[in-house]
Amino acid sequence: MAVGFGFSVNATDGRARSGVIATPRGEIRTPAFMPVGTAATVKAMLPDSVQATGADILLGNTYHLMLRPTAERIAALGGLHRFMNWDRPILTDSGGFQVMSLASLRKLTEEGVRFSSHIDGSKHLLTPERSMEIQRLLGSDIVMAFDECPALPATEEAVAKSMRLSMRWAQRSRDAFGERPGHALFGIMQGGVSPELRAESAAALTAIGFDGYALGGLAVGEGQDAMFGVLDYATDMLPADKPRYLMGVGKPDDIVGAVQRGVDMMDCVLPSRSGRTGQAWTPRGQINLRNARHRDDPRPLDEGCACPACTGYSRAYLHHVVKADEIIASMLLTWHNLHYYQVLMQGLRDAIAGARLDAFVAGFHAMRADGDIAPL
Amino acid sequence: MAVGFGFSVNATDGRARSGVIATPRGEIRTPAFMPVGTAATVKAMLPDSVQATGADILLGNTYHLMLRPTAERIAALGGLHRFMNWDRPILTDSGGFQVMSLASLRKLTEEGVRFSSHIDGSKHLLTPERSMEIQRLLGSDIVMAFDECPALPATEEAVAKSMRLSMRWAQRSRDAFGERPGHALFGIMQGGVSPELRAESAAALTAIGFDGYALGGLAVGEGQDAMFGVLDYATDMLPADKPRYLMGVGKPDDIVGAVQRGVDMMDCVLPSRSGRTGQAWTPRGQINLRNARHRDDPRPLDEGCACPACTGYSRAYLHHVVKADEIIASMLLTWHNLHYYQVLMQGLRDAIAGARLDAFVAGFHAMRADGDIAPL
Repeated sequence: MAVGFGFSVNATDGRARSGVIATPRGEIRTPAFMPVGTAATVKAMLPDSVQATGADILLGNTYHLMLRPTAERIAALGGLHRFMNWDRPILTDSGGFQVMSLASLRKLTEEGVRFSSHIDGSKHLLTPERSMEIQRLLGSDIVMAFDECPALPATEEAVAKSMRLSMRWAQRSRDAFGERPGHALFGIMQGGVSPELRAESAAALTAIGFDGYALGGLAVGEGQDAMFGVLDYATDMLPADKPRYLMGVGKPDDIVGAVQRGVDMMDCVLPSRSGRTGQAWTPRGQINLRNARHRDDPRPLDEGCACPACTGYSRAYLHHVVKADEIIASMLLTWHNLHYYQVLMQGLRDAIAGARLDAFVAGFHAMRADGDIAPL
Repeated sequence: MAVGFGFSVNATDGRARSGVIATPRGEIRTPAFMPVGTAATVKAMLPDSVQATGADILLGNTYHLMLRPTAERIAALGGLHRFMNWDRPILTDSGGFQVMSLASLRKLTEEGVRFSSHIDGSKHLLTPERSMEIQRLLGSDIVMAFDECPALPATEEAVAKSMRLSMRWAQRSRDAFGERPGHALFGIMQGGVSPELRAESAAALTAIGFDGYALGGLAVGEGQDAMFGVLDYATDMLPADKPRYLMGVGKPDDIVGAVQRGVDMMDCVLPSRSGRTGQAWTPRGQINLRNARHRDDPRPLDEGCACPACTGYSRAYLHHVVKADEIIASMLLTWHNLHYYQVLMQGLRDAIAGARLDAFVAGFHAMRADGDIAPL
């Protein structure tokens, strides 16, 4: 690990692991869920509230921040932590995935990706070297190598070609990152749904040597079965003594299945994005607060939940503010969803430590199968 | 005063008064500024945060709440306090002003106002009796009499006719309100900018007898000079031993001038609405965070302010989140503005108690005349 970093697995249960990533900015309990703070804010949340949900680390998006307010500006203002008032660890993505999904006029070459900003049309070039520079300017604690994530479906030939480009970029990322005590660099495995390509990618990355390893190219529309199919073998291709990060995952049942398959870190916009559209996640599954069945319901969203939305408000109130498009709806439901995700992660960590993960997962699925409480 | 209510003036300085309105749900320090919680939420704020700014009482809007989620529904759910998770005092307006400014297909008669909802076009009739019923269902602590507020400019004849209708409605409001221990009823003076009509209205209201008296028909486009011109005489027409409430005011300098003229309570959407459009109020005046001059500014919005926006963030960050239309911009700037308003009210109360209001007001205007800090 990088100087100042450490990763210890404290317990295992089957392939699942629980542990701690030590960083100069604090410990990250694993398995960890990282809320997404795209544009230097977890949408509709103050940083203190994010921390109150139990989050140990946030994710920031290189693509968004390089365009607005720019990495140079954030650096001049003291770095991303100070800028967004979050002093605990931050992981930044490399920008590669979002350039391909959000930017326009993209041109991919061996050098990198040329593109136009979705905000103002300005032209940019993102390369492994520039991605490392941006993430250094932001002051990211965990830096991601610059990779290319092919859109699915794709031929195995296209996936192979893309993966090998990403492995060359991984080496360039490693070289450009250099030695930065207190900052870690993670490589990203690609290879689609091919065991052979995944193995080739894992071998290439471990030969380079990273502080942690991400599973890329998943959660991009392949479906849960296909994703779990890859995780069934791919996590074990990565070094056991380094954190394994599944990017962009996911729904609660995705998270549970990934942890069962040896994943240590995840991130997803789902809990925050859902919260802004009246959707809530509870142990009983997904609940649409916009639905008229909640209009007169005096009960909390989840009577077992300790978040402000559940301790302070009825479903009827949440329904009302969702229907009235009030900002407090986004605030309360985002808080609830992030809280639920962190409670789920704590449950997973405790179950692994107690060697009772199977029972925990069975209970998780059983309660979801019951569905929401009956209408009054 | 109503049973359970009390009003004591603890200090005067010129015509200005400071005191306390005691209610069963807690004390209201006067002069008081009441944040507006239109649809059962102070937009972009959690109730705990509103209280943290120093607010002792909120205002709720009868018009909005009767349409959605409806007063009957809120009553069934335990009342407005419980619904919106605010256990301190709430004042509700009568609905009269907003029916005339927001509803469509309005028809005004002696009986009341027929109108169509701006939300779904549904037809409603609002009368003094129905307004009292709605405010009772909401569980409002301070209920406002139902009145009509004529649009300006208007002829003195039209203002007189409207005022006399409002006085008949005030009597009907008083009769319909009945005796409700723990709940107060305020009458509303009308009469435009005519001293004679204001005097006639004050006499009519005091003959009926209310727990407090509002100055209506101001802050409706007449300008500050005309408003202060009315306050120069109209507050003294109202009983000195009852709270005087200036409805819908205002900007910080409106508030200061109103307090100097003997006003005890005010409300306005300005601090919260401004906060949602990138506008901030400080002792140095109004600041537009959208302006590019803040883009690289590492300094806080107001270095003397203890609110989360000023203690945790740079102007550059606030500029960034305003430009990026992030919800946190509304959250932080609304919090700041409400905090500033409450600090201003505390400053006014302390100055009155210390018999140094003139010096306080001179300092207030001098700092605003200096304007914002110079760009870096």
